[in-house]
Amino acid sequence: MVGIAVLGCGRIGRLHARNLARHPRARLTAVFDVVADAAHKTATELDVPVAPSLDSVWSDAEVTAVLIATPTDTHVPLITAAVAAGKAVFCEKPVDLDLGRARACWSDIRRKNPQVMLGFNRRFDPSFQALRARLQAGEVGALELAIITSRDPAPPPASYIRTSGGLFRDMTIHDFDMARYLAGDITHVHAFGANLVDQEIGKLNDIDTCTVSLRSRAGALVQISNSRRCAYGYDQRIEVFGSGGMLLAGNRRATAVESWSAQRTAAQDPVLDFFLERYAQAYEAELDAFVSAVETGAPVSPDFGDGLEALRLAAAADESVRTAKVIELS
Amino acid sequence: MVGIAVLGCGRIGRLHARNLARHPRARLTAVFDVVADAAHKTATELDVPVAPSLDSVWSDAEVTAVLIATPTDTHVPLITAAVAAGKAVFCEKPVDLDLGRARACWSDIRRKNPQVMLGFNRRFDPSFQALRARLQAGEVGALELAIITSRDPAPPPASYIRTSGGLFRDMTIHDFDMARYLAGDITHVHAFGANLVDQEIGKLNDIDTCTVSLRSRAGALVQISNSRRCAYGYDQRIEVFGSGGMLLAGNRRATAVESWSAQRTAAQDPVLDFFLERYAQAYEAELDAFVSAVETGAPVSPDFGDGLEALRLAAAADESVRTAKVIELS
Amino acid sequence: MVGIAVLGCGRIGRLHARNLARHPRARLTAVFDVVADAAHKTATELDVPVAPSLDSVWSDAEVTAVLIATPTDTHVPLITAAVAAGKAVFCEKPVDLDLGRARACWSDIRRKNPQVMLGFNRRFDPSFQALRARLQAGEVGALELAIITSRDPAPPPASYIRTSGGLFRDMTIHDFDMARYLAGDITHVHAFGANLVDQEIGKLNDIDTCTVSLRSRAGALVQISNSRRCAYGYDQRIEVFGSGGMLLAGNRRATAVESWSAQRTAAQDPVLDFFLERYAQAYEAELDAFVSAVETGAPVSPDFGDGLEALRLAAAADESVRTAKVIELS
Amino acid sequence: MVGIAVLGCGRIGRLHARNLARHPRARLTAVFDVVADAAHKTATELDVPVAPSLDSVWSDAEVTAVLIATPTDTHVPLITAAVAAGKAVFCEKPVDLDLGRARACWSDIRRKNPQVMLGFNRRFDPSFQALRARLQAGEVGALELAIITSRDPAPPPASYIRTSGGLFRDMTIHDFDMARYLAGDITHVHAFGANLVDQEIGKLNDIDTCTVSLRSRAGALVQISNSRRCAYGYDQRIEVFGSGGMLLAGNRRATAVESWSAQRTAAQDPVLDFFLERYAQAYEAELDAFVSAVETGAPVSPDFGDGLEALRLAAAADESVRTAKVIELS
Repeated sequence: MVGIAVLGCGRIGRLHARNLARHPRARLTAVFDVVADAAHKTATELDVPVAPSLDSVWSDAEVTAVLIATPTDTHVPLITAAVAAGKAVFCEKPVDLDLGRARACWSDIRRKNPQVMLGFNRRFDPSFQALRARLQAGEVGALELAIITSRDPAPPPASYIRTSGGLFRDMTIHDFDMARYLAGDITHVHAFGANLVDQEIGKLNDIDTCTVSLRSRAGALVQISNSRRCAYGYDQRIEVFGSGGMLLAGNRRATAVESWSAQRTAAQDPVLDFFLERYAQAYEAELDAFVSAVETGAPVSPDFGDGLEALRLAAAADESVRTAKVIELS
Repeated sequence: MVGIAVLGCGRIGRLHARNLARHPRARLTAVFDVVADAAHKTATELDVPVAPSLDSVWSDAEVTAVLIATPTDTHVPLITAAVAAGKAVFCEKPVDLDLGRARACWSDIRRKNPQVMLGFNRRFDPSFQALRARLQAGEVGALELAIITSRDPAPPPASYIRTSGGLFRDMTIHDFDMARYLAGDITHVHAFGANLVDQEIGKLNDIDTCTVSLRSRAGALVQISNSRRCAYGYDQRIEVFGSGGMLLAGNRRATAVESWSAQRTAAQDPVLDFFLERYAQAYEAELDAFVSAVETGAPVSPDFGDGLEALRLAAAADESVRTAKVIELS
Repeated sequence: MVGIAVLGCGRIGRLHARNLARHPRARLTAVFDVVADAAHKTATELDVPVAPSLDSVWSDAEVTAVLIATPTDTHVPLITAAVAAGKAVFCEKPVDLDLGRARACWSDIRRKNPQVMLGFNRRFDPSFQALRARLQAGEVGALELAIITSRDPAPPPASYIRTSGGLFRDMTIHDFDMARYLAGDITHVHAFGANLVDQEIGKLNDIDTCTVSLRSRAGALVQISNSRRCAYGYDQRIEVFGSGGMLLAGNRRATAVESWSAQRTAAQDPVLDFFLERYAQAYEAELDAFVSAVETGAPVSPDFGDGLEALRLAAAADESVRTAKVIELS
Repeated sequence: MVGIAVLGCGRIGRLHARNLARHPRARLTAVFDVVADAAHKTATELDVPVAPSLDSVWSDAEVTAVLIATPTDTHVPLITAAVAAGKAVFCEKPVDLDLGRARACWSDIRRKNPQVMLGFNRRFDPSFQALRARLQAGEVGALELAIITSRDPAPPPASYIRTSGGLFRDMTIHDFDMARYLAGDITHVHAFGANLVDQEIGKLNDIDTCTVSLRSRAGALVQISNSRRCAYGYDQRIEVFGSGGMLLAGNRRATAVESWSAQRTAAQDPVLDFFLERYAQAYEAELDAFVSAVETGAPVSPDFGDGLEALRLAAAADESVRTAKVIELS
């Protein structure tokens, strides 16, 4: 059994804690949150202790690994401390909003060859995983075009936007990682941003709608489109195209019912909404992959470097919007 | 050019006349209808003469074939006269409402080996034709189960029902023919009828909803379901199943647009409605097959015998409803 | 916590035991099987005791309910004993292969007003449940036609067939229950059976393919088609039709990937296969419904009477095949 | 009847000539081609005269309009001559490969307020037309994102590429027009090009794969992706997204058959391929719109200005690829 403490008991931390609590080869040793109420609520639900302090976590020999689901600006110090304490780490995305700070963290810790896995959950979605496996197996030939669609059901409140790092670092970051997952290294970035959904977002100098074009080192072209609002639910689709044809991975629905009426035919349910539902299987699978890696000492994937690369693409997208140029990455 | 006169200028006669008028290898020589207005309207539209009488049609050497789209009770005398005059015949279904009368007609004329093609248009629908070709080619193995769905958009008026011969002879007859087209000879018939759509139909001792089960000589089982009313349009579907899997032939729509909204996703247009639209290609193709057969003297298909067999199944279905038994056909 | 012992540790018993073991409001108190190895294997996996005898189960005050997943011929004595011991019962279908024996059991125990729930798992499938709820809510008007498709991936071995009670009691019984779930009381039954899949099944005087037509007391018509073999997986579909249109509940797939190639487009995965996968959610939901009923003392559904009715329809189907008649139920 | 002469009897000229020959309110007066054989072949097929010279067309009082389907470099002189002769013009896209030359032509002729319609056939596709009508009617709110997918089945030969003007002017031009049709005026253009399909194309300094991002004056973002090769046929799709949801217009197939087998389920036919099949209805509808405009003297749409705008976007895309910048249009 791999002993794991969960740091951060917000929505996503609680989800991970629940998944760990029922994982057959993991043991949820404790939960921690600076908001004591949040920690106690999760601890009570799952019948585990609240860690009295972070130090108690670092010094607990039963804790082999920590899962970091705290606010973004604490990721770097927590990762650093956890690695110093010899713990394996699973950290929610993004590593940090500042690429320089994230890089500095990595250069501090990498000589220890630590296991630091990043929570790019979409890599573990069964449909996206199957699509990628079939792409890698050559079913459509070498990748030429990838189209990534990602739209959230509704914009977050202004308070969230304010500390989010902006659309590219907060939302598109998943799509940047997906682009790398499918197409490998990215060399060129172009982005358009727009404020079409919520004027409050514009007032905060953020955007809520974007299109991104990427070129991969291998020559493939990738298109991303994002919106912070989607009437029909959480729209998550991927299309890959090559000489042999195309693979699509579409949305999922709660039931397989369709209705035929005088107005319309073959109408299906709204799509699963929101990420907790849509990626429920992915969240379980990524933890399982992490537990397995900790058990065997094998490299984790996606790792800290993947987190850095996604962040680098987000920064390039910001720069592209600002300069109206294509940003070339070395 | 094959000279063809059209007898009967109602809705379906006019359709055939239009198709013949633009067929590259046919010539519409004249139209005829006992309702002079109907004949003139069609003649004017297509710039062809009105035949002054049926005799003028039979004696016209330019008329190689006639297309009979008159009321059902005139089919037998018109077929008989046309064959006597040496004409090839395309006749709308059904041959007659009375199986005995239809058989007598056939035994009168068959020694002349006439070309009498029946208007079972669905055999010429591109989807159903492709499904059958793939079935025959062995794509799903030998047929084990066939499911035929046929639902009309709205019930006809009582005046139509009164002379229609009842649901099985008027509407299901197409499905009986489709069953034979897919499964070959039928040996056993069971039917349930119900009056669920329109009470007027029940008052006329007719049904508007039915389920039929058939067993073929080769051992396959066939299910038919019919309704005289369908909110979402003219529902026309076929499913065939064997050891290798299943083929489905579905409905067609005017556009490929689908809508995604807060209420529902992937909603498509209503289906093409009614038979003039849904089977527009089939009506052209069946005439083309007829013209080709007349040109070459080859046997027509479906022929008078197919018309008799469909009628026999309709009569058996009526008997099954009446007796609550399975009707075995020799 | 509701204490529940599982009797029978075959494939389906083990599934239920696992679901109970992780149910938040149930406690798996013990497992039992006359095959000691099977009991021990499940007990070890789930860390629960093996009950030394059935008597120990009946006398255990911690056991509020039993789940019966033993061979069919033991259902009646076990239900009887469990009810006598004051236990609530969840029993796999069918109640018994013999309608008379099942009725006798029910008339023995019903005066005690026992909670005996039948394992008609499909009633708890999210898609079928949503379809029925929307039907009941009037979305398509009163039910006029229901089409139930049920095809197993592959025929069971002869040894299974020999004691199965035949296709109607073993396989179609689920569809008979679904027909009642959707259409209510059934008054007329017609069935065709065929031996098209496996000659061994025919040698055992059983059938492997069937079509069934039912008429409900309310006037709706229902069609069922079954095959013991289906190349593309476990085919489970329902279609309901009324004046307002149609609802379909289709198959489920492991991923939402589709492929487009030179040969074909929009090709999806095979369907989920077999019942353990397809109905995984349904198995959990039916146990949850049972636990809730035991907690509150509310009536269970589906109950013993539903088990009897499904059996009665199976017997009528057998009789219809034998007599080539429609069987009318009082 | 509107008398129309067809100039150019290649593949697309012949198609238009055939459509005019059977149009109820147009009369195909003559055909012309500098390749006499091509002209005679079409003339014979359609039983119309070959015009002896262009001058004979200009001076023919029966010729109210001309349809120009000649090589691109002749469009400008032919349009100029036709307008000078007082004819209405239907011209295939593009107006010219050189934006300056096209503009000069327009500034020469526009004072005459001529009817010059451009052959952007996709505006007349029933699915795209319905999608746009529903978009305009507000079904999804104001346009925020549009995704245009256009992939040809196979790359043209090098000889064609050499005089094509490059991917953007030859192929993407249709998508540029579609972007304007959906999103109105475009103000910003970014493009990536790649040579992934055919090395011969690269040797000619052309690209065969691209992604384009556009921003409209109203603020919408548009993505286009193109490939010169598509294994599954002629892929033509549009997606529009706004606050109310999404509309998709997909591909069309010859039949509605789908197959279910051990390998895959719900597999459909390849898509209609190539433009003559996919846009057969659109070609008829655009000519009908032209004939109607000529009859009434109403403005044509799309007109010469639309041709200029599409060309301007193509030029901007070329410039964006060359400079790695976003091109802003005044």
